[in-house]
Amino acid sequence: MGLRKKVSLAVVKRLPRYYRYLSDLLKVDITRISSKELSMRMGITASQIRQDLNCFGGFGQQGYGYNVEYLYKEIGSILGLNNNYQAVIIGAGNMGQALANYENFEKRGFKIAGIFDVDPELIGTRIKGIEVTHMDKLEEFMQKTKIDIGILCVPYEQTPAVAERLARLGIKGLWNFSPMDLKLPYDVIIENVHLSDSLMVLGYKLNEYKEMKKNKKEQKT
Amino acid sequence: MGLRKKVSLAVVKRLPRYYRYLSDLLKVDITRISSKELSMRMGITASQIRQDLNCFGGFGQQGYGYNVEYLYKEIGSILGLNNNYQAVIIGAGNMGQALANYENFEKRGFKIAGIFDVDPELIGTRIKGIEVTHMDKLEEFMQKTKIDIGILCVPYEQTPAVAERLARLGIKGLWNFSPMDLKLPYDVIIENVHLSDSLMVLGYKLNEYKEMKKNKKEQKT
Repeated sequence: MGLRKKVSLAVVKRLPRYYRYLSDLLKVDITRISSKELSMRMGITASQIRQDLNCFGGFGQQGYGYNVEYLYKEIGSILGLNNNYQAVIIGAGNMGQALANYENFEKRGFKIAGIFDVDPELIGTRIKGIEVTHMDKLEEFMQKTKIDIGILCVPYEQTPAVAERLARLGIKGLWNFSPMDLKLPYDVIIENVHLSDSLMVLGYKLNEYKEMKKNKKEQKT
Repeated sequence: MGLRKKVSLAVVKRLPRYYRYLSDLLKVDITRISSKELSMRMGITASQIRQDLNCFGGFGQQGYGYNVEYLYKEIGSILGLNNNYQAVIIGAGNMGQALANYENFEKRGFKIAGIFDVDPELIGTRIKGIEVTHMDKLEEFMQKTKIDIGILCVPYEQTPAVAERLARLGIKGLWNFSPMDLKLPYDVIIENVHLSDSLMVLGYKLNEYKEMKKNKKEQKT
């Protein structure tokens, strides 16, 4: 790892997508693929693919293409997927439950080690075999178990306080589902998920498409 | 709208973020803001802000800054948030329920008009006042109600078939939560949400940070 050059965030953000496509190829026993073919499947240019994968020293071979399994494993290692990160989910409502039940996370090397809430009706219930524990026991739990990531599924107003509490307990990364750009005066890496941003982008595209159609119609008449 | 120039997708993707920050400013009665101040809050450069907002003819005034409410409304209109889009959720599991309960969507002009599933235990239950209906009645429902957007929260394997069914029923946009890049041979706008991609980016950043710390330590010794 030490020899790898610093990769731009734009490239990093595309890596999971490569990883997904390579995983799908492996599932159907495709062992090698040209940048051209991968480009057609992914809907990005072959030169973009070559450029992206070059950032890591490149794994392609002229006239042979990419070795799918090798590339899959390399990207996985670049993404740090073999680090076996352990996570806690804070908030066992629908979103927390949905995430706990999401099989892909464990496949990608992220293990849910605990789920916490304050709702008496949820405490003691089990999600995928993990007991929902009261927030009062968070400190005790985190002293006993090595936890890297906190997944925040608590209501908007409570998010900053819960995030700070986790930061003080030594959490390294936070995956935040509240519709806010969480910022903390701590040494914590934060990844914000903004679901309504994505819905708004869909709204924009629908709007743009409607306008385009209207303009075309007007031009015809 | 007709006079607006075509905006790059990169800018469009940043608009919801501006919209969120402006909404927060309005909540605390801030009525005008300079690009510099907005830049500090949002953690992007002032020149980026001016450049982005210039795409829409610019709303700033030298020495005065931006009128927050005006900008908020304009961005909302550019995003098409006053179109009152109606959506159906397909799949009333945890993710579907979490989305149905997400207050922000309705605030942004997206209304959930129906929720569908095939699970007998879920049919007839109500989520936020909306009855979960059997998928058998989807066609009938969509003939009676104008639906723009389908929100896909069904298992991976079923996603393409459900998406195609909605496309044939005339849906305009699909918001897909299955971990696949959905493609359809129809005139439908698709926005894929890839939750595990975002988690993998967090994993990468954690990994990078760990390496950085290790290298620093090695340099010291």
